[in-house]
Amino acid sequence: MRDQQVASGSGVYPLRYVPGGSDQWAEAVLGLCPQGRLFVVTDERVWPLHGEDFVRRLQATGREVFAVVLAGGESGKHLESVTEIWDRCLEAEIQRADTLVAFGGGVIGDLTAFAASTLLRGVSVIQMPTTLLAMADASIGGKTGFNRPQGKNLIGTFWPPKAVLVPVATLATLDAREIRSGLAEVVKSAWLSGEVDVAWLEQSATGLRARELTLLSEAARRAASLKIAIVSDDEREADRRRWLNFGHTFGHAIEQIMGYGVWTHGEAVAVGMVMAQDLAVSLGIADARSAERLRLLLGSLDLPIETPALPIEALRRSLGVDKKRRGDEVTFVLTRKPGETLTYGLSWVQVGAWLERRRSGS
Amino acid sequence: MRDQQVASGSGVYPLRYVPGGSDQWAEAVLGLCPQGRLFVVTDERVWPLHGEDFVRRLQATGREVFAVVLAGGESGKHLESVTEIWDRCLEAEIQRADTLVAFGGGVIGDLTAFAASTLLRGVSVIQMPTTLLAMADASIGGKTGFNRPQGKNLIGTFWPPKAVLVPVATLATLDAREIRSGLAEVVKSAWLSGEVDVAWLEQSATGLRARELTLLSEAARRAASLKIAIVSDDEREADRRRWLNFGHTFGHAIEQIMGYGVWTHGEAVAVGMVMAQDLAVSLGIADARSAERLRLLLGSLDLPIETPALPIEALRRSLGVDKKRRGDEVTFVLTRKPGETLTYGLSWVQVGAWLERRRSGS
Repeated sequence: MRDQQVASGSGVYPLRYVPGGSDQWAEAVLGLCPQGRLFVVTDERVWPLHGEDFVRRLQATGREVFAVVLAGGESGKHLESVTEIWDRCLEAEIQRADTLVAFGGGVIGDLTAFAASTLLRGVSVIQMPTTLLAMADASIGGKTGFNRPQGKNLIGTFWPPKAVLVPVATLATLDAREIRSGLAEVVKSAWLSGEVDVAWLEQSATGLRARELTLLSEAARRAASLKIAIVSDDEREADRRRWLNFGHTFGHAIEQIMGYGVWTHGEAVAVGMVMAQDLAVSLGIADARSAERLRLLLGSLDLPIETPALPIEALRRSLGVDKKRRGDEVTFVLTRKPGETLTYGLSWVQVGAWLERRRSGS
Repeated sequence: MRDQQVASGSGVYPLRYVPGGSDQWAEAVLGLCPQGRLFVVTDERVWPLHGEDFVRRLQATGREVFAVVLAGGESGKHLESVTEIWDRCLEAEIQRADTLVAFGGGVIGDLTAFAASTLLRGVSVIQMPTTLLAMADASIGGKTGFNRPQGKNLIGTFWPPKAVLVPVATLATLDAREIRSGLAEVVKSAWLSGEVDVAWLEQSATGLRARELTLLSEAARRAASLKIAIVSDDEREADRRRWLNFGHTFGHAIEQIMGYGVWTHGEAVAVGMVMAQDLAVSLGIADARSAERLRLLLGSLDLPIETPALPIEALRRSLGVDKKRRGDEVTFVLTRKPGETLTYGLSWVQVGAWLERRRSGS
């Protein structure tokens, strides 16, 4: 498969699917980094499955390679993890010519790239996403960051990687829930992309549910292509980049209200898309068949489509609407149909009324 | 005085001397930030002298203005101070359209700009340097950062300010040692710049020692001009930017060995320049009169010129030379005479031998 090129403010970097196992992954990394030391950052889930072997292969070539194994998961996406990366690198007296390698899911990618962007005012990072979600979405676009008690991803930088190298075989060791979480973003991308990608997903649903590796990697590739087209257009969030928030306005609220970790990000986004499409139908922007089609597609991939019971007051707070300023608008990403996207501002009064009607089933 | 323009990778920003007091400073800031909230970051020394009044003037215009008062000083240049800025801003739900204002010395400037570069993946910062050192040097060039237990400025970013606004009148409340510390960087800049600036300094030494405000601000302006010329050429450290390290190789070692805070940065740099020029003389690069002239100039500004007793072994470690790799080179910035600068690599064997000879007075 040919490299895809991602444009960023500071140049162009490749996205490459690396077939085979850790030998090939090591070769791909060393080809990009002929010099300097390597700091491989991963988490406790990935380390025994692939990380340890990968680091050994790198070391076997005679290169100086350090491993930083973090606790992992969204609950580990905090400053203490960043500090752990900083300290390991600084204790080894990292130099500007050295490279960090983010070998894991989206959290590892965001933490490692943030650390890289701030060590010695910036060292290179290579993204090696090992989850479907990270392959389809998180590893592309140069956003880095971590959570603070005040909210998610509030501290971060833009720091494009030197390359995104996808170790495709890691897809085989993901559990069903991790796959599902990634498939939600794949559906989102297909829906934003248009009829061709949606039809492909509908035809491939059975194989994807059975976790066929070639289909999963093709799904990631298609989703990544859309993201590349959008971020290459505009690295610093605006306009089209906003479209990527389809399903995320309600999705984030669901995550926050239900408690992070109870619903996966993907599950919340799946329901968020259903809600957004229902909202588009109620506004006369989309027809009812489009909402039904989206429900069927998500359901065929074992993703949830039923909205959990959400107190409307909690939803208001979560959407960032100030109760005292009743004129406040919430901006939604809505679609007329696959491939036709728009942003739409609604007052909280309208949103609240729609939620009430929806809940009472009228 | 007309604005000077500083070029950076991401555009051009102005350096402006703001005459008058807090009324004028507030006006200058509000002119640059017609919208959004302001977060003024300062330290406990500057707050009672100028900060409180400045923030009140800003608030009196009806704008929403927050003050963050840090402990200050090089010993406060750590992650906890950055976290304090982050948290104050996040608790106030900072938006991308808001602006941080760094109102203080170099430490406040570096910490505030780092926080700005990482809050919500980047908000604007305005630099308002209140020390001679920060006016002459630290506020220009877009470097941000803080110290880690492993060393100084190891974590940081490049984040050019929206503008550098110099509240000149703050020079009047600096103590003698702070002025001296700034004058060392002024001498460095003049020496790198050439005969005209060195001669001006020699003629102005008496007035500078007497802390005449117009002379101090002219000294800052001349030093800043050189730095602007160099960083505009090349924001991301290389080539000419290295010249700014004149006196800093030995200077950093002195700070580290004597203990930070025992010698000010400026005092250490003054002796570092003397050592560098002596080294240039011993290599036949410069003549002895140039070293004598530098000593006289520094002495006339009450800066130290005598090298403290430095164990050669500690110096080696501090210069980052690995004992086992005896071929390791140290790169020095040396001058033939004012305005003629070069970088020069010397093996540790040569440096060590020179230090031994120098110590024994031969």
